[in-house]
Amino acid sequence: MDESLIHEGERLDELHRKGYMIIQDPSQFCFGIDAVLLSAFARAGSKEKVLDIGTGTGIIPVLMEARYGGAYTGVEIQEKAADMARRSVIYNHLEDSIKIRNEDIRESYKGYGNRPFDVVTTNPPYMIPDKGLVNPNSAKALSRHELTIELEDIVRISSHLLKTKGRFYMIHRPSRLVEIMTVMRKYKLEIKRLRMVHPFIDKEANMVLIEAIHEGGAFMKVESPLIVYKEKGVYTEEVMDIYYGE
Amino acid sequence: MDESLIHEGERLDELHRKGYMIIQDPSQFCFGIDAVLLSAFARAGSKEKVLDIGTGTGIIPVLMEARYGGAYTGVEIQEKAADMARRSVIYNHLEDSIKIRNEDIRESYKGYGNRPFDVVTTNPPYMIPDKGLVNPNSAKALSRHELTIELEDIVRISSHLLKTKGRFYMIHRPSRLVEIMTVMRKYKLEIKRLRMVHPFIDKEANMVLIEAIHEGGAFMKVESPLIVYKEKGVYTEEVMDIYYGE
Repeated sequence: MDESLIHEGERLDELHRKGYMIIQDPSQFCFGIDAVLLSAFARAGSKEKVLDIGTGTGIIPVLMEARYGGAYTGVEIQEKAADMARRSVIYNHLEDSIKIRNEDIRESYKGYGNRPFDVVTTNPPYMIPDKGLVNPNSAKALSRHELTIELEDIVRISSHLLKTKGRFYMIHRPSRLVEIMTVMRKYKLEIKRLRMVHPFIDKEANMVLIEAIHEGGAFMKVESPLIVYKEKGVYTEEVMDIYYGE
Repeated sequence: MDESLIHEGERLDELHRKGYMIIQDPSQFCFGIDAVLLSAFARAGSKEKVLDIGTGTGIIPVLMEARYGGAYTGVEIQEKAADMARRSVIYNHLEDSIKIRNEDIRESYKGYGNRPFDVVTTNPPYMIPDKGLVNPNSAKALSRHELTIELEDIVRISSHLLKTKGRFYMIHRPSRLVEIMTVMRKYKLEIKRLRMVHPFIDKEANMVLIEAIHEGGAFMKVESPLIVYKEKGVYTEEVMDIYYGE
């Protein structure tokens, strides 16, 4: 175990999959349940090429590699997060299957070649920034608000980089579903599966999981609701299984 | 009780609300759970004017009048269904609060005056007809397939007839949600509440309840899932309450 990979203020957390660990900085970058749910909702084949847009600490590529195998590219605009992601990749000996790129994908995507990806995943910033209320230098603000990239950029770039019939997976807020559907149709990402995530069975959905097919036909299904807690502080069996199951 | 209102082959069914009954013809027109769920999901004030597009046997106006009061217009293109609806209105002594019109609303809506309705409800045909597979003379086919009216007609006409900030309620298939959202935004019916209906907690949604505001702002919530059965043949408490509760 190479402790020099973990810098001051950071910590190493267990992922309960294949012994993998992730480096996090509790003051700035910690993955949430959204990334975990998306990594289980998404699918990748062991020979597929996957792009994760806004990869943060690399949590989605690491969790998906553990589940499915495959070759991952994680793109992150924030230098510190990208650096932590790179060190997590080294720590887990995943250099051959996960590449981390520290760049602004809005600038760099044209250099990726002709539709190189089978799959795109993204857990993007959910919120439209209120002018003046958000500190654009804060790492947390950048990961939560659309300061450096907007929904339409992500959808447009994903559509550009995905093979025909390639798959796009995103987790987002239900409050933005009309906009999400409108923009995705505009860029020919046709929604196939939708799954609402409710904190409790009798509460509003606070997240939505989406699978779309690039240039797919128009037919969508809404899967059974994903309920996070069966009672306060106690995960449902499904969520326990997503976190800790084989 | 005026038995002459019920014709041969028809039957009279209890609605478990204010003693109201509905005339149905089991061979042609029977309301489904969709109409019942929509009547409970929708809201109307006791002074509001409500239009029900494709009212069939008048089930939605009758159930909503029982819940909320209000003044209803039910429009139905099929003569036999409209005639049964009119007789149900008479049977329940609701002539002052429910008017049934037997007409093609695509032709007649321009004669309705300037935005006369506070609320529009609709339980429209869900299916896009497969050419050649559907008998256009069948009453069941007309109520299930978009033979005489399409989703976009209904949304366009509703938008035309609703007051600013008037409310639109529809039940439809989740498989058509992208199209529904695209068309509704086009005609300025902004979705506010969405509720998925699942036959069982662990099954796909087979219906979706929608509330939209005419010229409303863009903010939507997805309510807790509505689960129909707790086990085979046994309704959940919520559905029992919708059918039989006060």
